[in-house]
Amino acid sequence: MKKSIAEKMRRRASGMLKRAGIILTRDEAAAIEVADFGLNDIEHVGLEIVTYENNSRYCAKELVMFPRQICPEHRHPPLSAGNSGKQETFRVRWGKVFLYTEGEPTPRPKARVPERHRKTLTVWREIVLRPGQQYTLPPNTLHWFQAGDEGAIISEFSSSSDDASDVFTEPAIQRIPVYA
Amino acid sequence: MKKSIAEKMRRRASGMLKRAGIILTRDEAAAIEVADFGLNDIEHVGLEIVTYENNSRYCAKELVMFPRQICPEHRHPPLSAGNSGKQETFRVRWGKVFLYTEGEPTPRPKARVPERHRKTLTVWREIVLRPGQQYTLPPNTLHWFQAGDEGAIISEFSSSSDDASDVFTEPAIQRIPVYA
Repeated sequence: MKKSIAEKMRRRASGMLKRAGIILTRDEAAAIEVADFGLNDIEHVGLEIVTYENNSRYCAKELVMFPRQICPEHRHPPLSAGNSGKQETFRVRWGKVFLYTEGEPTPRPKARVPERHRKTLTVWREIVLRPGQQYTLPPNTLHWFQAGDEGAIISEFSSSSDDASDVFTEPAIQRIPVYA
Repeated sequence: MKKSIAEKMRRRASGMLKRAGIILTRDEAAAIEVADFGLNDIEHVGLEIVTYENNSRYCAKELVMFPRQICPEHRHPPLSAGNSGKQETFRVRWGKVFLYTEGEPTPRPKARVPERHRKTLTVWREIVLRPGQQYTLPPNTLHWFQAGDEGAIISEFSSSSDDASDVFTEPAIQRIPVYA
C-alpha cells in the first residue's frame, strides 16, 4: 500500500472515531494501523486499528471499518501448551457489523462480497451486531466480518494479540502492519 | 445501600454514559453495578460499573464516577502460582481522573478527600488522566482514584477480574456488588 493511501485512510478512520465521540491522543491518531492484508484492495478488504494496550495477558483495540469493508476470514490458532489461541470479544460501538463464524450457514446473509473475494470466505453463520451488542469468539474458530453501509467501529477486548500467528483462509494474505 | 438509592445512581450513571456517546443495551443499563464498598457514603466513595466481559483470560468494564467520587485504595494480590494478580489499564473516555499509586508522593495533589476517608489513603503519587490518556497498573500495586469536578468515565481493560480477592486498605470495606 502506498504511503499516501495509508495516510488518507488513517485520516478517514480518525474522523469516524471523532464523530463517534471516541477520543485519541494526537500520537495515537497518527499511528492508526492501516491493514490491507497485502491484497491492495483496501476499499473492500481492510481494517483500521488503534491498539490501546497489548501485553502478555490482555489486549484492547478499536477497529474502524469503512462502509462494507471486510476483515478477511481467519482463526487464532493455539500458541503453546498453556495458550489455546487468542479469544476475543467484539463490541460494536457505532454502525453495524455482519460477523460470520463456524456453524449452520445463514440462508440469506446480509454481507455483500465482491465475486473475487468470495472463494476465501468459507464460514457463513451470521451474527448481526448493532451498537451496544457484542459477541465472544472462542480461540481457533474461523471468522470474518463486514461493516454495514455506514461503516462501523468495534471495541475488541481479547487475550494477548499476536497478529503474526493468525491463519488466513486466503493464502495470498500477508498480515503486515502498515505505518506511515 | 437502599434499593432506591442504587436505582437512582444507576439512572445517573446511565445518563452520563449516554451523554458520552457510549451505548448500552437496555439489559446492561438495568444491571449497572452500584458499589458503595459497604461505607454507605456513595456520593464520596463509590463506583458505577458496567462489565462487558469477564472470563478466565481478560476483562473489560466501563467505570462511571460521579463528580469527585473516590474509588478507595486497594491492590489486586497474587492469586496462584501462575497468576500474579489482576493487571489493569485505565483509559479515560470522558472527564478527568486523579489516579494515585505507589511511589514518590506528589507535593500538591489535586484530589479532594473528606477528612474521615483520609487515613485509608496511603499512596500519593499522582497521575492525572484526561480523555484519551491511559495508565497500566502492575499487579499487587496499591492504588485509588478520584474523578474531577465533572465526574469521569473510564474504560478498564484487564486480566481476569475477581473483586472478592481485592485487598482494601480500609478494613471496614466490603466489596459486595449491589444490584436492584
